[in-house]
Amino acid sequence: MTTKKITFSSQTVNYYFDASLDKLAELTNPDNTFIITDENVFAKHKRKFTNWRTIVLKAGEAYKVQATVDSVIDQLIELGADRKSCLVGVGGGVVTDITGYIASIYMRGIQVGFVPTTILAMVDASIGGKNGIDVGIYKNMVGLIRQPSFLLYDYSLLKSLPKEEWVNGFAEIIKHACIKDAAMFKLLEENKLTAFQKDKVLLNQLIQRNALLKSKVVQQDEFEQGDRKLLNFGHTLGHAIENSYELSHGQAVALGMVVAAALSAEYKKFKEVEKLVSMIQKYGLPAFAEFDAVKAMQVMQSDKKRVKGVIHYVLLEKIGKGVVTPLTPQQIEPIVKKLAQPSK
Amino acid sequence: MTTKKITFSSQTVNYYFDASLDKLAELTNPDNTFIITDENVFAKHKRKFTNWRTIVLKAGEAYKVQATVDSVIDQLIELGADRKSCLVGVGGGVVTDITGYIASIYMRGIQVGFVPTTILAMVDASIGGKNGIDVGIYKNMVGLIRQPSFLLYDYSLLKSLPKEEWVNGFAEIIKHACIKDAAMFKLLEENKLTAFQKDKVLLNQLIQRNALLKSKVVQQDEFEQGDRKLLNFGHTLGHAIENSYELSHGQAVALGMVVAAALSAEYKKFKEVEKLVSMIQKYGLPAFAEFDAVKAMQVMQSDKKRVKGVIHYVLLEKIGKGVVTPLTPQQIEPIVKKLAQPSK
Ligand SMILES: NC(=O)c1ccc[n+]([C@@H]2O[C@H](COP(=O)([O-])OP(=O)(O)OC[C@H]3O[C@@H](n4cnc5c(N)ncnc54)[C@H](O)[C@@H]3O)[C@@H](O)[C@H]2O)c1
Ligand SMILES: NC(=O)c1ccc[n+]([C@@H]2O[C@H](COP(=O)([O-])OP(=O)(O)OC[C@H]3O[C@@H](n4cnc5c(N)ncnc54)[C@H](O)[C@@H]3O)[C@@H](O)[C@H]2O)c1
Ligand SMILES: [Zn+2]
Ligand SMILES: [Zn+2]
Repeated sequence: MTTKKITFSSQTVNYYFDASLDKLAELTNPDNTFIITDENVFAKHKRKFTNWRTIVLKAGEAYKVQATVDSVIDQLIELGADRKSCLVGVGGGVVTDITGYIASIYMRGIQVGFVPTTILAMVDASIGGKNGIDVGIYKNMVGLIRQPSFLLYDYSLLKSLPKEEWVNGFAEIIKHACIKDAAMFKLLEENKLTAFQKDKVLLNQLIQRNALLKSKVVQQDEFEQGDRKLLNFGHTLGHAIENSYELSHGQAVALGMVVAAALSAEYKKFKEVEKLVSMIQKYGLPAFAEFDAVKAMQVMQSDKKRVKGVIHYVLLEKIGKGVVTPLTPQQIEPIVKKLAQPSK
Repeated sequence: MTTKKITFSSQTVNYYFDASLDKLAELTNPDNTFIITDENVFAKHKRKFTNWRTIVLKAGEAYKVQATVDSVIDQLIELGADRKSCLVGVGGGVVTDITGYIASIYMRGIQVGFVPTTILAMVDASIGGKNGIDVGIYKNMVGLIRQPSFLLYDYSLLKSLPKEEWVNGFAEIIKHACIKDAAMFKLLEENKLTAFQKDKVLLNQLIQRNALLKSKVVQQDEFEQGDRKLLNFGHTLGHAIENSYELSHGQAVALGMVVAAALSAEYKKFKEVEKLVSMIQKYGLPAFAEFDAVKAMQVMQSDKKRVKGVIHYVLLEKIGKGVVTPLTPQQIEPIVKKLAQPSK
């Protein structure tokens, strides 16, 4: 086990890498702790939840909504959760987002810790304190930023993780490498997905590197005035097409990264588009797909969270160096149109 | 108009005393501001809301619930509220609590300001950043602590405030005098309610004094580790009986203050019970009432927000000096029983 401490503006977060879920009992008092998980994680690891009071949610993004929050709050009241209680979210990003949110608002805030069980949650969703829920078609429309007390990484939980969820998580790992870590990009080039799945030492290195990379970006810009925006690499277009096609988040981000790379070639003299395309394909993600460019442009511009006018696009100067660049829709559209074609 | 600035841990709050609602247009951009008010305030002051996009809520505590939050969030999305939008709560404590809560969670937090329109909201509810909603029978079960950007005091809005709401607010003013401000206790002895209702200069002095008193207590202890608890004077028993009888909040607090004073006489050598009783009665509040002492004790002990064991009761050493004192239920019960009798 490796322990790290990272201090954010209002909270120090303890990271326990390569640990075991059994350690939870050392971190929080079982008598006043409530675990929140989802039915898939619970079904695959039932035994690990004995001795813990556990609230099991339906799995999936469709349940990251207020109705689930209402139901959990009713259960917490019923179970006698008080100001000194601690919630622990054991699951993917849906579980950690909703658990973090509930802990932020229940009795004006109680302690929370996370045990991420997907690659995506390990390297991304459980880190940085953003939490929340979706409202109708709008993702993460309601929520807040508040850090957990601890993050506990137990890689044995990944044994049950479906292949496509591994791939999803690797989209964010490739994203991290692109914006901040050229050496990691190399590491990813030199290995492949099955190596990380089989070799726990290698996996631990990778997860830790990504978790700390995201943590540092957030630490420097917790409330998203600047650098934190880099984490949106691939997500501007990614979010715009994710809902309309049956794409996983990782697939949408992969396509978005290629579009951002092409924009970078155009506006930042970025020379490594091909390298990125190979990387994306190597990890089982799509680099190209046909999509409706006009509609994608519309969604990007109508994004409710966007302050009107230009779009702050994350581009690459080179692999390992992302830069936020304001672009007009007119600058973006031709490239998006080109890449939205069936053949390139 | 008098301007004050008070800096809390994460936000400086601007106070505009003796100002006019017209000033709002200088504080926030009308094009991207949404006012939230209730039907009573809106009906009495309709003209003042022209030129502002206004969401009008049903009035009363019964609507300080998630269903109202859901509906406001849907309206905000519909109206195009974005990250740069500002919400302004114009109303009593119900409106400021729910508006502050929505602003805290909408898009992970947008700006908010308050225009309190009840005495209680002016001296208490709109100050200190606590916000939230009720869940079932549990008051303020969900919410958080987050400061507004500004507070705008327009006393002309009080012209329509019913007498019983004035009285409610004065219960909190008497509370403030008891825990922290013996000179204000004198001022209240030397005047009476109608004087404050008629004399704007006198009223402004009183409101400002109370607003700053609460602000300072909160400033020293924003996240309620210690001194902020003093503000619960009269509220421990008050909350325990408020729901069971048809008591207003002010009436319940008044009865609670007398119980706390009697406990103070017993455990803190407090000598001014009679003085407090006279004050309470002078301002139209009840000092004594028949209630079910056994039930009140049960509610106090079952309070979901209480960490088990002793009750941290706010007692008085003298008028103007409150102290938080841990008492066991056994120490509290005989006094509560005595005061719950029909005749004393
Ligand atoms: N807060 C943030 O900063 C942040 C960042 C990125 C993503 N997110 C959020 O994260 C969510 C996506 O996270 P996710 O991809 O982990 O989704 P998820 O939580 O839905 O998990 C994906 C699927 O894997 C299952 N699963 C999880 N762990 C498993 C395990 N160990 N074994 C078997 N099955 C398992 C889940 O039940 C689910 O079906 C989105 O809601 C997104 O908005 C948040
Ligand atoms: N956040 C805090 O720190 C804090 C502190 C104390 C109380 N509170 C909350 O405040 C609420 C009570 O506040 P309140 O007493 O102001 O209640 P309220 O908002 O319900 O107002 C009382 C009544 O007066 C009406 N009203 C308000 N202003 C008016 C005006 N100018 N003219 C005519 N009618 C008017 C309202 O419509 C309502 O019917 C409770 O929900 C309580 O939990 C919060
Ligand atoms: Zn992502
Ligand atoms: Zn009160």
